[in-house]
Amino acid sequence: MEKPLILVTNDDGITAPGLRALIRTMKEIGEVVVVAPDSPQSGMGHAITVDSTLFSKKVVVDHKEGAPSEYSCSGTPADCVKLALRVLLDRTPDICVSGINHGSNSSINVIYSGTMSAAIEAGIEGIPAIGFSLCDYSWNADFEPCLDAVKKIVSEALTNGMPKGTVLNVNIPKTEKLKGIKICRQARGNWKEEFDKRRSPSGKDYYWLTGEFELLDKGEDTDEWALAQGYISVVPTQFDLTAHHAIPLINNWNLNEH
Amino acid sequence: MEKPLILVTNDDGITAPGLRALIRTMKEIGEVVVVAPDSPQSGMGHAITVDSTLFSKKVVVDHKEGAPSEYSCSGTPADCVKLALRVLLDRTPDICVSGINHGSNSSINVIYSGTMSAAIEAGIEGIPAIGFSLCDYSWNADFEPCLDAVKKIVSEALTNGMPKGTVLNVNIPKTEKLKGIKICRQARGNWKEEFDKRRSPSGKDYYWLTGEFELLDKGEDTDEWALAQGYISVVPTQFDLTAHHAIPLINNWNLNEH
Repeated sequence: MEKPLILVTNDDGITAPGLRALIRTMKEIGEVVVVAPDSPQSGMGHAITVDSTLFSKKVVVDHKEGAPSEYSCSGTPADCVKLALRVLLDRTPDICVSGINHGSNSSINVIYSGTMSAAIEAGIEGIPAIGFSLCDYSWNADFEPCLDAVKKIVSEALTNGMPKGTVLNVNIPKTEKLKGIKICRQARGNWKEEFDKRRSPSGKDYYWLTGEFELLDKGEDTDEWALAQGYISVVPTQFDLTAHHAIPLINNWNLNEH
Repeated sequence: MEKPLILVTNDDGITAPGLRALIRTMKEIGEVVVVAPDSPQSGMGHAITVDSTLFSKKVVVDHKEGAPSEYSCSGTPADCVKLALRVLLDRTPDICVSGINHGSNSSINVIYSGTMSAAIEAGIEGIPAIGFSLCDYSWNADFEPCLDAVKKIVSEALTNGMPKGTVLNVNIPKTEKLKGIKICRQARGNWKEEFDKRRSPSGKDYYWLTGEFELLDKGEDTDEWALAQGYISVVPTQFDLTAHHAIPLINNWNLNEH
C-alpha cells in the first residue's frame, strides 16, 4: 500500500527546530514533502501574498534527518500551502501538518496564528489538516516529550478522516509529563496590549507591541483549562465564520423598512 | 447627548476612496476618528506586527471632508485597531467600521480579509464592529449608491447593539439599484489558484498568484446568492472558531488508549 503523503509546513521558517522535529516524526508514518517559509512568519494570521512576487526553491536543510523534498518559499504559511497544492506536489496530500510552533496558539491566538492559517488553507481545499503548537517560545524548546502524541493524533486523523469543514488546533503544554489528550473548545480571552512608545534618531514616534494574554473563561471544557492541567488540547476549528445563532437576532433589526 | 464615537479604518490605506466615502458618511451620525494603514494591506488576513516597529502619525488627508482626527499607521488593519484602542483614542469607541473595501469579502474571502480582521479585532475587544466591502475592485469604484444603506446599518447597530461575540461582514453588489439588505450565512467556496511562473533576470524562479473564485454553494440563504440577486449581504461573523459539532466526533477517536 502506498504510504500517505504528508505536507509539512509551519510559520517559524524552514530551519525552525519545531519543524525539523515534526518532519522526523512524520517520516515514521508517511512520505513527507516540506514547503515552508524561508523566514519567520509569526503573527501573519491568514495573510496571503497579492500584488507581489513569490519566490520558491528546492532546498536541503538537513541531509540526514530532513525530508527527500523540501522547498522554501518567500511567502506566508497560507501561500506555502497554496503553492504546494497547485504547483509543487505531484498528488494531493493525504494530510497537511503545520508546526510544531514555538509558542501557544490556544484560545484567541488561533486568529493571529500563521501555523493555523496553513492548516486552515489546506482544510478549505478539503485536505485533513492539523496545526501543532508547543507552549514554549524558546528556539531551544524541547519537542521530544510530545512527539509520540503528535504521531498518535496524525495517525488517528489519517484513520478516521476529519469532520467536514474542520481542522484541528493542537496545543501542547510545556512539560515532560503529559497527562493525555483532551478535545476542547476555544477559551474566550484576549490580549491586553501595551505599546512601548519610542522616538527614532530622526525624531519619528514608533511603537513596539507588547502585552499580556487575559483569560476570560474558566470553563473546564476549554483549551486553556486542559493546558493548565498538563493535557494536550485539541480544538476542532472551522472556517465557516458565520455566527448562525445571530442571524434571527439581526433579522429583527429595522434594515429594510423606510 | 454625546455623539457616538466612531473608529474608522480599512485595509486599502488611508487615501483610498472607499475609506474617504465611509468617513463622509460616518460624520453624519457621529464623531469620527480615523486610524488606517499608510499603504495597502489587502490580503493581510489577521496579521499583526510582532518583532517589528510600528510607526504612526497624525495626518490630514482631506481638509474639507476628512475627519478632525486622522492617524496613519505603518502596520496591518489589526494593528491599527489595537493602536487606536490602547494609545490614540481618549475613550472607547461606540462602534468600529472598516472599509469600504475596494473588492468583495464575501464567502471564504472573509478569511483573507484585512478589512474584516480590523472589525474582528474590535469585536474581540467587545466593541460593535462592521466591515463593509463593495464588489468592485476599481480604485474609481462608485460608492455613492450604497452610502444610505451603510448609514442605515451602522445606525441600527448603534441602536440594537451587537450579539455577543459577533461582528458584521457586509458586502455590497456593484449596482446602482440595490434591492435591499439580506441577513445571510457565509457561502461555501474556495479559490482555484493558478501560479504564473516566471524567471527573474538573475535566473530565479518566481510566481504571481492568480486564480478564480469557485462557488460551491447554491443556498439561497448565502451571501453569494444575495449579492447575485442585487441585495446587500450581511453575515454575522464570529471569532470563536470552535467547530462545536465536531467535538463528540473527535472524542470517538482512539487518542488516549494504549
